[in-house]
Amino acid sequence: MEEYRVTFWPEGIEISVPAGTTLLEAAAEAGIALKSTCGGQGSCGRCVVRVKEGHVASEPARRKLSLPGEGYVLACRTKVLGDVQVEVPKDSRLDEHQVLLDDKQGASVESPCTLQPLCEVVSLELEPPTLTENASDWSRVQTALRRYFPETSIKVSLSTLQELAEALRQADWRVAVSLARLNGQAEVIRVTSANEKDIYGVAIDLGTTTVAVALVDLIKGRIIAQGGTYNRQSRFGDDVISRIIYATTTEQGLKELQEAALASINEVISELLKEKGISYQQVVAASLAGNTTMTHLFLGLTPKYVRLQPYIPTATEFPLVRAGETGLNIHPSAPVLVFPSVASYVGGDIVSGALFTGIAKSQELVLFVDIGTNGEMVLGNSDWLISCACSAGPAFEGGGITFGMRAMKGAIEGVEIDPATLEVKWRVIGRTKPMGICGSGLIDALAKLRRAGIIDRTGNFQEVPTPRLRRTDEGCEFVLAWKEESGNGQDIVLTEGDIKTLIRSKGAVFAGIMSLLKTVQLKLDTIDKIIIAGGFGNYLNIPNAIEIGLLPDLPLDRYIFAGNTSLKGAIEVLLCRDKWEEAREIGRKLTYLELSVGNLFMEEFVSALFLPHTDLNLFPSVASYAPKYAPGERVAG
Amino acid sequence: MEEYRVTFWPEGIEISVPAGTTLLEAAAEAGIALKSTCGGQGSCGRCVVRVKEGHVASEPARRKLSLPGEGYVLACRTKVLGDVQVEVPKDSRLDEHQVLLDDKQGASVESPCTLQPLCEVVSLELEPPTLTENASDWSRVQTALRRYFPETSIKVSLSTLQELAEALRQADWRVAVSLARLNGQAEVIRVTSANEKDIYGVAIDLGTTTVAVALVDLIKGRIIAQGGTYNRQSRFGDDVISRIIYATTTEQGLKELQEAALASINEVISELLKEKGISYQQVVAASLAGNTTMTHLFLGLTPKYVRLQPYIPTATEFPLVRAGETGLNIHPSAPVLVFPSVASYVGGDIVSGALFTGIAKSQELVLFVDIGTNGEMVLGNSDWLISCACSAGPAFEGGGITFGMRAMKGAIEGVEIDPATLEVKWRVIGRTKPMGICGSGLIDALAKLRRAGIIDRTGNFQEVPTPRLRRTDEGCEFVLAWKEESGNGQDIVLTEGDIKTLIRSKGAVFAGIMSLLKTVQLKLDTIDKIIIAGGFGNYLNIPNAIEIGLLPDLPLDRYIFAGNTSLKGAIEVLLCRDKWEEAREIGRKLTYLELSVGNLFMEEFVSALFLPHTDLNLFPSVASYAPKYAPGERVAG
Repeated sequence: MEEYRVTFWPEGIEISVPAGTTLLEAAAEAGIALKSTCGGQGSCGRCVVRVKEGHVASEPARRKLSLPGEGYVLACRTKVLGDVQVEVPKDSRLDEHQVLLDDKQGASVESPCTLQPLCEVVSLELEPPTLTENASDWSRVQTALRRYFPETSIKVSLSTLQELAEALRQADWRVAVSLARLNGQAEVIRVTSANEKDIYGVAIDLGTTTVAVALVDLIKGRIIAQGGTYNRQSRFGDDVISRIIYATTTEQGLKELQEAALASINEVISELLKEKGISYQQVVAASLAGNTTMTHLFLGLTPKYVRLQPYIPTATEFPLVRAGETGLNIHPSAPVLVFPSVASYVGGDIVSGALFTGIAKSQELVLFVDIGTNGEMVLGNSDWLISCACSAGPAFEGGGITFGMRAMKGAIEGVEIDPATLEVKWRVIGRTKPMGICGSGLIDALAKLRRAGIIDRTGNFQEVPTPRLRRTDEGCEFVLAWKEESGNGQDIVLTEGDIKTLIRSKGAVFAGIMSLLKTVQLKLDTIDKIIIAGGFGNYLNIPNAIEIGLLPDLPLDRYIFAGNTSLKGAIEVLLCRDKWEEAREIGRKLTYLELSVGNLFMEEFVSALFLPHTDLNLFPSVASYAPKYAPGERVAG
Repeated sequence: MEEYRVTFWPEGIEISVPAGTTLLEAAAEAGIALKSTCGGQGSCGRCVVRVKEGHVASEPARRKLSLPGEGYVLACRTKVLGDVQVEVPKDSRLDEHQVLLDDKQGASVESPCTLQPLCEVVSLELEPPTLTENASDWSRVQTALRRYFPETSIKVSLSTLQELAEALRQADWRVAVSLARLNGQAEVIRVTSANEKDIYGVAIDLGTTTVAVALVDLIKGRIIAQGGTYNRQSRFGDDVISRIIYATTTEQGLKELQEAALASINEVISELLKEKGISYQQVVAASLAGNTTMTHLFLGLTPKYVRLQPYIPTATEFPLVRAGETGLNIHPSAPVLVFPSVASYVGGDIVSGALFTGIAKSQELVLFVDIGTNGEMVLGNSDWLISCACSAGPAFEGGGITFGMRAMKGAIEGVEIDPATLEVKWRVIGRTKPMGICGSGLIDALAKLRRAGIIDRTGNFQEVPTPRLRRTDEGCEFVLAWKEESGNGQDIVLTEGDIKTLIRSKGAVFAGIMSLLKTVQLKLDTIDKIIIAGGFGNYLNIPNAIEIGLLPDLPLDRYIFAGNTSLKGAIEVLLCRDKWEEAREIGRKLTYLELSVGNLFMEEFVSALFLPHTDLNLFPSVASYAPKYAPGERVAG
């Protein structure tokens, strides 16, 4: 087949591809990461590039998209038919380092443990063998180690054994032995010369959208570097469902997704190691927390039945695997602790979060809420734990919202609306011109629109005197930022559809919370502590979230932000090995409430499709806000 | 091809087979297990059946066998030429619960165990999951298995888990689960539909020269096929030392040797599986016994320091590995039990032999001798065990001898010399013209040459009146077979050098035995039982071996042939799982005597370089043989 050259600018990277390759595929091959959240379906409109020169063929997008100007095309819908010069706008690129990892607010729920790392190092001065003292190399090491671990059986993996003879002799029998302590056994991971005593672990949060990695010094018990990137699986679809479909309907689909997740993780690991001047062999342990689908894909387990009723994962507890088996680019014998799941939609990320936040040891009644693409939540204390997952949708991550975007540079993260003039002010991440609006901005906007009387309690636009409210072919929309103010030359609007989507999302989360409470027959105000997790949680304005009915109307001092608890729990098991058994117990102990059984959730959901709720008694503090413009005639939509 | 009906009595089982099928094959197909330890060669005489009626053709047996009476035939030598009625005597049947392993000579040292195979199959009828009974696939299986293994932790490997979801659904939740029972754990190896209940294991004897494999039915507790081939490593050198040099001085040498061993083993396995119509996934367990170098090469461990003083192997106990890790072409999750070694030159083959022959449980004092390229021996009883290895060289396997060859078709295996005429008669394997001489022939020749006074006690040729003794540029030689009689057109001779080599070899073995005895301060006649192992052992003429001073001069009834005990021990651990821990204990318990330390061995060796020995008191029965020609003037050499 004919091959053509595609050159990407401003880098000037040139590659050769067969005729008919899409520009999205070509960019991936050139190592240029384009935004794409619809899996190349031509519906998200994020992979916009400009064809400067050359012969291409573009199929029309799936939905109406306004492209920035002449020559702009969707990379996923555009095929190469000759040599091409392509410019990749900054906005279409995945920003590599905008994954948020940690925050000061998380400090209050940290559960410090005595440093007792998963792996440790023992220095041995061995007597060299002689004709009369002729034990094998491994017996020699094992015997010496027994002084340190008298009660423990001491094992070694085949790959470590393969290196042992030379390692001992190169180190002239004075060695540092790295061991993992697991299940009452000590397992030798690595043998080096006596002066190489530093060992590290990596904690991995494998999210559907982003991957976060912490590099941990196992001797000092410290996080020494953190990093993140987008999950490269994104090009196969935005959410777990589209990934599952890809994995189970495409030949090699599961393998492709597994490799994409691995490539994302390995990329971050290798950057962190490079930054710190650490070799991959020094990383002797790993832990990984992810939702059930991500965990299945990472381990090469089919996620097919996670999607199909009755939603059954292959496993919720996973075998102890070695880095070499998984493809993680660290020491091949390093154990990889993969957090157990609870069910198909309550995964290891939630178990890790429950571990880190200490719910399972709490005397108080705790509600733990992780709002990502799904809303997952755990309610309970040291006696019992119950969890559920509601399909909140990706709205709070910017998905499915016309100008929605993740909390990154250019995102409106706060909105003010003057009650008198209905004029809008916004706060933008990175203090630049706004390009879109992220979750916290959306919550803010919804609260302020309602407070200003621009929308009513059902989310319908009201007849209000402002040019910002306008009607289009597809219904009404409200202009948050005029194109003269915006960073992309477009009016940034919230449409009627966006508002409905947001209300459904917030309604689902609140209905999940209520379903848990009703199942255990408790009232909202019995909750002593609400812990909010997820990257999202870092920017959430709690009063606004209460005002729109996303979160319960409880005193603000009961709320705690915990940040990326999935990653933090993963770090914890590396530093405190007893925590691993605790995590496994949480996985077993957590009852899963399947919301698709019975009417409970659906009834709660319908009741929650108002701002804040049909039952205003649930929101006493909110009910007192009177909208300036009383609900009146709807603007025709 | 014409098909005939064969009916076996007293069961009355009738099957249809093509003309020319042997009764042994037909019985196997009918599910009737006949004793057969020569592999259908017509030499063991165990598969005796009575043809009551019908048309058959019997070939004569390989050796003279007395059959019980009219109509009795060897099933392996009898072909079906019409419909046949066959009666199977009880004595010819394999007892279901006794692990019978090889030839009749081995019988007396067989250690029958109750059938308790390493792997077993459990049938499960699982309830399909529902929205309310939504445990994961693996939890469902695990819970159901717990009824069978209440006290045991139940594990699964990642690769098995990867197949689980589809396996359960394809079998419509009625499954057969194959599990390995090891270290107090049950590990799921394979999940299939409920009617696939047959599982198999392979026992492997990885020898320096040959590879032997037994395919074992783990349900019925029977060996169903055996096969062997040459170790393909041979092209890198004949003995372990040359292999070690290749492995450690050639780039990729270790990998090449590892792959060569694997290819040899996999070839035999695949032939056996093809022969029996078994798929590789049905083979769910393996065991492997080999000398220390072979074991290191199989596992990819460097054998470098096995060769260099002080002769240290990387390990003597090996991690439990999976077939997938090793490259064995059976079910990738199958456990591979690799027999522990004792030291660099006493390997897993000896531990396996010690296990099979039951030395470690014996009340009597047992000497176990395995004569291959090295002579390895174990002395002891249930209280203590000591072992050593002496560099006997490959002479008894035909190596280093001018016309030496292995015990195969065309090899002289027995020699007679007429004391009066000095004329020679020989017995050739396969009743063809002689091509060379194998180990048992060499021992015979040495004994007969001495008895006829053709050589003296030091092995030097004497002036005797026969044209067979002649002088060449390289010394004297004795013609065993004239070129007119031989199969290769050459005079088959034994040279002076050959005789020196043989004396050194037999001296080394005997010196090893004496060194063990002196170390524990015991006399020769305290040995209650001498077990001879090795392929060689099957053909050895004990009186001749004593006469040349290879083996101790003890009553013949103390001698037992055990055949390939390395393979037999490997089979045993597959059929009796408790034996594996016993094997590991033998490995730990066996004291290793390093013969290169001190002068003990060297002194014994020098004393043993006579026929039979310098100290004739050690060989009272031999000393009485007076050579016909008294030691006189040497023929110039």
